[in-house]
Amino acid sequence: MADAALFEFLHTEMVAELWAQDPDPGPGVSAGPRGEGGTGRGGKAGRTKGQKMSLSVLEGMGFRVGQALGERLPRETLAFREELDVLKFLCKDVWAAVFQKQMDSLRTNHQGTYVLQDHSFPLLIRMASGLQYLEEAPKFLAFTCGLLRGTLSTLGIKSLVTASVAALPACKFQVVIQRS
Amino acid sequence: MADAALFEFLHTEMVAELWAQDPDPGPGVSAGPRGEGGTGRGGKAGRTKGQKMSLSVLEGMGFRVGQALGERLPRETLAFREELDVLKFLCKDVWAAVFQKQMDSLRTNHQGTYVLQDHSFPLLIRMASGLQYLEEAPKFLAFTCGLLRGTLSTLGIKSLVTASVAALPACKFQVVIQRS
Repeated sequence: MADAALFEFLHTEMVAELWAQDPDPGPGVSAGPRGEGGTGRGGKAGRTKGQKMSLSVLEGMGFRVGQALGERLPRETLAFREELDVLKFLCKDVWAAVFQKQMDSLRTNHQGTYVLQDHSFPLLIRMASGLQYLEEAPKFLAFTCGLLRGTLSTLGIKSLVTASVAALPACKFQVVIQRS
Repeated sequence: MADAALFEFLHTEMVAELWAQDPDPGPGVSAGPRGEGGTGRGGKAGRTKGQKMSLSVLEGMGFRVGQALGERLPRETLAFREELDVLKFLCKDVWAAVFQKQMDSLRTNHQGTYVLQDHSFPLLIRMASGLQYLEEAPKFLAFTCGLLRGTLSTLGIKSLVTASVAALPACKFQVVIQRS
């Protein structure tokens, strides 16, 4: 159905729009003092300040969408006893609602760190597979990291969520639970 | 299901984000010469330049999503003979795919102008009904205007689409076909 694709199209446009607003100004054009510019400064992939901001904006949007989704869940799901049950719920039900599939694997060190692996992440599928567009991947993952963090937050779990890609279109989400 | 709400949540976030980036700078702080400021200048609702830009960004995003949706339609729909059939298709199938409902009415002057009316437009439902938030409505309609224009474009019809609201959450979309 078209509506499953709708989320994907809208997500693509959102990423493109946020990126278009923050074109790489090149070294030395940032707010800091001139002359300090250079590649590879301030981030693994040499991202600009604007791009980092766009990632955090996307993550924030994902967080709020995740919170709202979490609030729509049937009430009985809010009575999960074990943290692991909540993570399983993310991997099955939340993933199915958003991406019409399930997460491929879930691992944990039983100390509050969970690794969720999707061998064929829908928001990366349209990119050529392999290594050549690996640098572009983070912007297609930020929203989903936020989505996971937001849903967990509604279920009463504070977390940090990061994502990594070794080869497109597979990716891993790492969820680290924050104990208060 | 949660996935129907997903589009709505994402749309809300998108509007909020674009608006947050262009806060109303107040009169006199625009790019024009100072001292000319004042309310009611340059637009019915006294919108700022930034807000007009945000509306056009939203419309553009809607257009590209509509184009992409149009390309996913079953091939036989591309063989519509009559313009009116295409409009009926928008009101039934496209509306159902995006909003899980049908448009409430479709009228035409048989000279290339169509009025599509939705008595309870999903993207406006969460706003209080009545008149008090009428000013806020345009930002929730721009994306959908673009969506209609984009889908029509993929089906080979060039158009201008505008929207108007008399009382929330009802709204009208006016489609004017552009003959080349």
